[in-house]
Amino acid sequence: MDEGTDGQEPRTTEETGPVVAVLERICEELAPRREGQVSDFIPELAGADPNAFGLAAVSAHGRCYSAGDDEAAFTVQSVSKPFVYAMALEERGLDDVHAHVGAEPSGEPFNAISLDEQGRPENPMINAGAIVTTSLIRGEESRSRFERIRAVLSSFAGRHLSMDEDSYRSEAGTGHRNRALGYLSMAGGVLEGSVEEAVLDYFRQCALNVTVVDLAVMAATLASGGVNPLTGERVISRRTARHTLSVMTSCGMYDRAGEWALRVGIPAKSGVSGGILAAAPGSFGVGVFSPPLDHAGNSVRGVAALEQLSENYDLHMLRIPSEPPSPVHSMTRAGGTLDVHLRGDIDFLAAEQVVSRLAEAVDDARVTSVTVELERVSGISQAARSLLTAELDDLDGAGVEASMSEPAVINEDSED
Amino acid sequence: MDEGTDGQEPRTTEETGPVVAVLERICEELAPRREGQVSDFIPELAGADPNAFGLAAVSAHGRCYSAGDDEAAFTVQSVSKPFVYAMALEERGLDDVHAHVGAEPSGEPFNAISLDEQGRPENPMINAGAIVTTSLIRGEESRSRFERIRAVLSSFAGRHLSMDEDSYRSEAGTGHRNRALGYLSMAGGVLEGSVEEAVLDYFRQCALNVTVVDLAVMAATLASGGVNPLTGERVISRRTARHTLSVMTSCGMYDRAGEWALRVGIPAKSGVSGGILAAAPGSFGVGVFSPPLDHAGNSVRGVAALEQLSENYDLHMLRIPSEPPSPVHSMTRAGGTLDVHLRGDIDFLAAEQVVSRLAEAVDDARVTSVTVELERVSGISQAARSLLTAELDDLDGAGVEASMSEPAVINEDSED
Amino acid sequence: MDEGTDGQEPRTTEETGPVVAVLERICEELAPRREGQVSDFIPELAGADPNAFGLAAVSAHGRCYSAGDDEAAFTVQSVSKPFVYAMALEERGLDDVHAHVGAEPSGEPFNAISLDEQGRPENPMINAGAIVTTSLIRGEESRSRFERIRAVLSSFAGRHLSMDEDSYRSEAGTGHRNRALGYLSMAGGVLEGSVEEAVLDYFRQCALNVTVVDLAVMAATLASGGVNPLTGERVISRRTARHTLSVMTSCGMYDRAGEWALRVGIPAKSGVSGGILAAAPGSFGVGVFSPPLDHAGNSVRGVAALEQLSENYDLHMLRIPSEPPSPVHSMTRAGGTLDVHLRGDIDFLAAEQVVSRLAEAVDDARVTSVTVELERVSGISQAARSLLTAELDDLDGAGVEASMSEPAVINEDSED
Amino acid sequence: MDEGTDGQEPRTTEETGPVVAVLERICEELAPRREGQVSDFIPELAGADPNAFGLAAVSAHGRCYSAGDDEAAFTVQSVSKPFVYAMALEERGLDDVHAHVGAEPSGEPFNAISLDEQGRPENPMINAGAIVTTSLIRGEESRSRFERIRAVLSSFAGRHLSMDEDSYRSEAGTGHRNRALGYLSMAGGVLEGSVEEAVLDYFRQCALNVTVVDLAVMAATLASGGVNPLTGERVISRRTARHTLSVMTSCGMYDRAGEWALRVGIPAKSGVSGGILAAAPGSFGVGVFSPPLDHAGNSVRGVAALEQLSENYDLHMLRIPSEPPSPVHSMTRAGGTLDVHLRGDIDFLAAEQVVSRLAEAVDDARVTSVTVELERVSGISQAARSLLTAELDDLDGAGVEASMSEPAVINEDSED
Repeated sequence: MDEGTDGQEPRTTEETGPVVAVLERICEELAPRREGQVSDFIPELAGADPNAFGLAAVSAHGRCYSAGDDEAAFTVQSVSKPFVYAMALEERGLDDVHAHVGAEPSGEPFNAISLDEQGRPENPMINAGAIVTTSLIRGEESRSRFERIRAVLSSFAGRHLSMDEDSYRSEAGTGHRNRALGYLSMAGGVLEGSVEEAVLDYFRQCALNVTVVDLAVMAATLASGGVNPLTGERVISRRTARHTLSVMTSCGMYDRAGEWALRVGIPAKSGVSGGILAAAPGSFGVGVFSPPLDHAGNSVRGVAALEQLSENYDLHMLRIPSEPPSPVHSMTRAGGTLDVHLRGDIDFLAAEQVVSRLAEAVDDARVTSVTVELERVSGISQAARSLLTAELDDLDGAGVEASMSEPAVINEDSED
Repeated sequence: MDEGTDGQEPRTTEETGPVVAVLERICEELAPRREGQVSDFIPELAGADPNAFGLAAVSAHGRCYSAGDDEAAFTVQSVSKPFVYAMALEERGLDDVHAHVGAEPSGEPFNAISLDEQGRPENPMINAGAIVTTSLIRGEESRSRFERIRAVLSSFAGRHLSMDEDSYRSEAGTGHRNRALGYLSMAGGVLEGSVEEAVLDYFRQCALNVTVVDLAVMAATLASGGVNPLTGERVISRRTARHTLSVMTSCGMYDRAGEWALRVGIPAKSGVSGGILAAAPGSFGVGVFSPPLDHAGNSVRGVAALEQLSENYDLHMLRIPSEPPSPVHSMTRAGGTLDVHLRGDIDFLAAEQVVSRLAEAVDDARVTSVTVELERVSGISQAARSLLTAELDDLDGAGVEASMSEPAVINEDSED
Repeated sequence: MDEGTDGQEPRTTEETGPVVAVLERICEELAPRREGQVSDFIPELAGADPNAFGLAAVSAHGRCYSAGDDEAAFTVQSVSKPFVYAMALEERGLDDVHAHVGAEPSGEPFNAISLDEQGRPENPMINAGAIVTTSLIRGEESRSRFERIRAVLSSFAGRHLSMDEDSYRSEAGTGHRNRALGYLSMAGGVLEGSVEEAVLDYFRQCALNVTVVDLAVMAATLASGGVNPLTGERVISRRTARHTLSVMTSCGMYDRAGEWALRVGIPAKSGVSGGILAAAPGSFGVGVFSPPLDHAGNSVRGVAALEQLSENYDLHMLRIPSEPPSPVHSMTRAGGTLDVHLRGDIDFLAAEQVVSRLAEAVDDARVTSVTVELERVSGISQAARSLLTAELDDLDGAGVEASMSEPAVINEDSED
Repeated sequence: MDEGTDGQEPRTTEETGPVVAVLERICEELAPRREGQVSDFIPELAGADPNAFGLAAVSAHGRCYSAGDDEAAFTVQSVSKPFVYAMALEERGLDDVHAHVGAEPSGEPFNAISLDEQGRPENPMINAGAIVTTSLIRGEESRSRFERIRAVLSSFAGRHLSMDEDSYRSEAGTGHRNRALGYLSMAGGVLEGSVEEAVLDYFRQCALNVTVVDLAVMAATLASGGVNPLTGERVISRRTARHTLSVMTSCGMYDRAGEWALRVGIPAKSGVSGGILAAAPGSFGVGVFSPPLDHAGNSVRGVAALEQLSENYDLHMLRIPSEPPSPVHSMTRAGGTLDVHLRGDIDFLAAEQVVSRLAEAVDDARVTSVTVELERVSGISQAARSLLTAELDDLDGAGVEASMSEPAVINEDSED
């Protein structure tokens, strides 16, 4: 049993099938690459096997696929940052968090020692910013701050995460630059409480053990809007998930944000141990692990694997579907009565289409009554509902009897 | 008749209805804001009316909505940059273009005088980068380089765009900093041909006249994957549209990329005349115009309008739908025969769901034959087709007769 | 009795005479200037009287002149930095000290948080560098590090310096940026021992109380090559004095090194309390005090006073004398015998002149014997002695009997 | 006959003697060093002999010493910058010149493309600044701007300097970065006239041919306060010479100003062809030539040679003489009459000593009349004269008859 799984039963992952075959093919193709350097900033990282290479994907529907070294444990390092940021957002709200830390890519290394003109670390994905977001989390009577952080990351992963004591002690003994970042942030007025405690809790969270499957589940939880698709637990709100993905988009891959958007386009976060976590919204969570890093500090094979996945498997966030599916399931006219059945997820664009179709239909013919049926609808946003209601009111005003019929339970597509 | 429309008939835009009401409400709400400074770098801009404010949106289905000063003409300025970049991509390919210009946010002002470590301007959305992408476009025997650029921007807008001669002459007479950027790029080995000619063609493209409706149509053309939804013309490939949106995401709003991703999340480009163009992929194109600029050089009311649209109307690119619509329209079993009808846009995630459902169904029951019917499908990606084919091959190998039935014409969801 | 003098007898300073009149005229002329801001980073500084203005000068021969508020005590702040640097040089040598701290002007503010490419603070005159040089000083069994530092600064001043406890406590309580600088230097491998102790000793030395007369005596000690001209004590070697003056030249006035060289040209160091110390080598030490600071952090009236002194009173280090005084006091020929009496300070240039004169004289005439007499010489450098000896050897070789006659005690102009 | 001497008779330089021996010893010692790279930015430089090594020194009294390749011609390159700056100072005055160019070390490479916050190049020793100072020089009817520049540099060197046409054409054909710097400065409002013409004249001045002896004479002219010690021609004012030396001190050795001040302390300027010119005020001018450059762009052997000269031969500008020579040649009392003979160069410090001695003498004894005799004085500064006059007035006021007796011609030590 592997030390990363901490005595629990391993999750069920698919062992065969065409999706597993896709991942295996990528692993085979990239395994021979030899570029990059294993990080040596602490002995625990320097000793990593440069040939280790694992890849996992978890779909928004909760199916789990993996290939290569999918059981190897490694310390999560900077991949923890988006999750602690998400915790801070949940506890303090977007505006309060960003009074303490910026949101811009720094164009500088992850350990850059600079604050923005408002005295804040540039963003929560660099060390200084992560130390500050850590400082914003409160401990509780029954649980220390770190235990709360560990609990949330464990909920994202769907299993209890253990800590690598040696890595923690190494970082605690040598991490003076991170202490400098902490004192600098305190001088800027944005770090709360004790610098030393915030820095130590930051080292602890970096030392949590994970596998690529853990990363993929964590990513899928973000990609699914905050609900772990394996355990069904809502870990953070949909709104927080969106904010977290946004910050990963601009700041997650160190100073390669632009290249990443162009060539990959999946919100992601990498770490110095060689892990990368990537979350394609509404679609897949992906985890990769391979220790050799490029000059920007990102896993060489990890970057290549995500480029292939994005290029070949429709995961780019700006991919444009060939034709948006029509939200109108059927539109039936019987005499003066128009009966419209909607389907799928009704967002503002879908509602605009419905309104437009309704307006045309009512213009063209002698319609005296309109019913819009929502029973096939999977969700409807507040904006879409407002638009539909406004149109029905307009029709009413124009002498057409108009109503909306909806089931008792419908998913109000709210983010909070 | 306004000088921006150059003798053509104005486009039909909706004059009433709930979507227009949404835009009008935003205009009313933001009109009283008085922050910001009108740009004064040339007299033609300095004379702009600080109260001018227009807003337009064009849906991916080609419907056009507007409010406020929707007929006021202004020079397009930096909003031309993504379109010239797209032209360069079409002519030279992604790798060749990016051998001449980077793709990273610069963290510096739009007219920053720096090259990256490879001697390239940081990205094509800053002046230096736009001068370089201009230099990559070739003239033809029958048409000068600038006439070709004007023709492409006109295709994006769906009407012929005229040039403001006074603005052009002002910039040509005083734009020494841009000449410096051109010579610097030439020294870096990335500008082709004559510096002076590239700079003058850059000034010409910046001096093209547009309205907010033009910007919205241009944006909708990007949002629809390169096809102008009003004229039906394919202006650029879907792949080029995606690349252009990617670069706008990371570099379009000067040094506010991170804030923009967090608070708006719509790929956008702003210009010094007060215009902003924003393209929500597969959904809406938006144009805004209001001259007063904030410290970053973005229109104050324009930014606020797009924040409202994103927050309230489901346009954030990382918005996670409540539940992805199922790609399986029906699955019918009759004896040992399983008949599966798919629908909508079949991408990799959808195919993964189908494969998973098929595998379960075949496991559960004595199925001897499977048919997958695609006639209700609006598009299918190559990756999705590969995955389905691989699963059908697996079933065949396991003794189940499996086949896919598709209509004569189906949209192969290719980007090129 | 003033708190800065700590119970000692005040020094004798001239009360009248033309030099005092010069200082008084400068004080009168500059007193009306109202620009600048009193520093408010700790309450003890924020409360300073913006009208306080004192000026003192001490000649290399030990005469002491002052005008204005010459008894007001203020904390020495950054003006302590050159003296702690000098201590480190004495204890560790030039190369060892500069393995820990650079020597280049940083072009950045005094509290800039950056290290050079070798991981060292840019120079010992910025906070980070001063904390590092402090860390290089060792405590002794009988005296703490700070007591040793205080003792050396007191020797420079010629009286015991007291510490302002309130200023020290304020800085210790709020100086997190300086702690950040300390940890950063420790991470760079250049700070020795405990960060917290080095930072506290740095705060203590900054809190030592001085008057402008103290600053002038301290400066005169540097200007005289390390010997306090009032007490006669050698505090540091001549070589260390030169190195200290060199670093003050390039790094002493924050990011105004070039302007300072051009307009003043006297090695100087300023502090946030409004003091400036300036040392014109071999000539005068000057102290000024006036709390309001300019944007670069230098005392407004202090800078103006030193500009006047330099412009009008021959203190610029690059001032070129109208004609260097001849080192030949007399050259007498009697028959074949040439008798040459030298005078003053014989450096390499002087020796070159003597050699050249000797060569001519011997060429021109039938000289068979040469004697060089040094009894009027005040000092002779090693290089000069070598040159003279080589010439006498050449003469000997050419058949001219040549010798040098010198008194029992002559000042060998060695720097160590 | 060497191409650098342009048909003129070579100057007389000493061929033997102990000073020549010093230079020869340095050449021998450093010849074996093999570090550094010959510049390859134009073919004319790339072809330089890496073993070429010459060294020359010219004393303030006009004696000329050399060793090694003292007749090899090379293009002056950036070593021309201080002289064009000096010309601009003479024509436009200090304040006007520095309204167009700063005076701070840039901490960046010589071809750095940045302006300071006032829109000026950082200093006149970087390319951008030198192009601007060139643009400030006016042509005349009879002579082009370049011919005027060539004439002034020739006066500094004491012979007509020729131009290397090939080097000029190479730079003119490829120097786009310098054109960028020119346009940037024009955009900043600090370059006058045509960018292209200023850049071409800059390239022409860089292509002037010199030898190490030329550099040493040019340096000696600066060191002597603007009078060429070989030809006796006053080329610039003493004040301009001081300003030029000041800017060389802070900005002459690229980004090594601090190290240079610490280890060498002689105002200097280096060039990409491997030349270094160094001027020890009132003492020696030195020229060195050796093509291989270190990372900062300074000649490796050149830097080493100047370190040795400074360390061993008393040339550091902050060298403190063991004891300043007394300005009092004799002080004789006969009855109530005090007769004081002064000598040498009387500056403020000397005058202060005289005043102090007079005051003591008058205090101690019944003196009724004082005469100060200046016939042995080589120069007297205005400040010194004021101080003496003030003291004599004070004595007069106290009832002592006091007067100053001076020869008809005395060198008023004015800088203008």
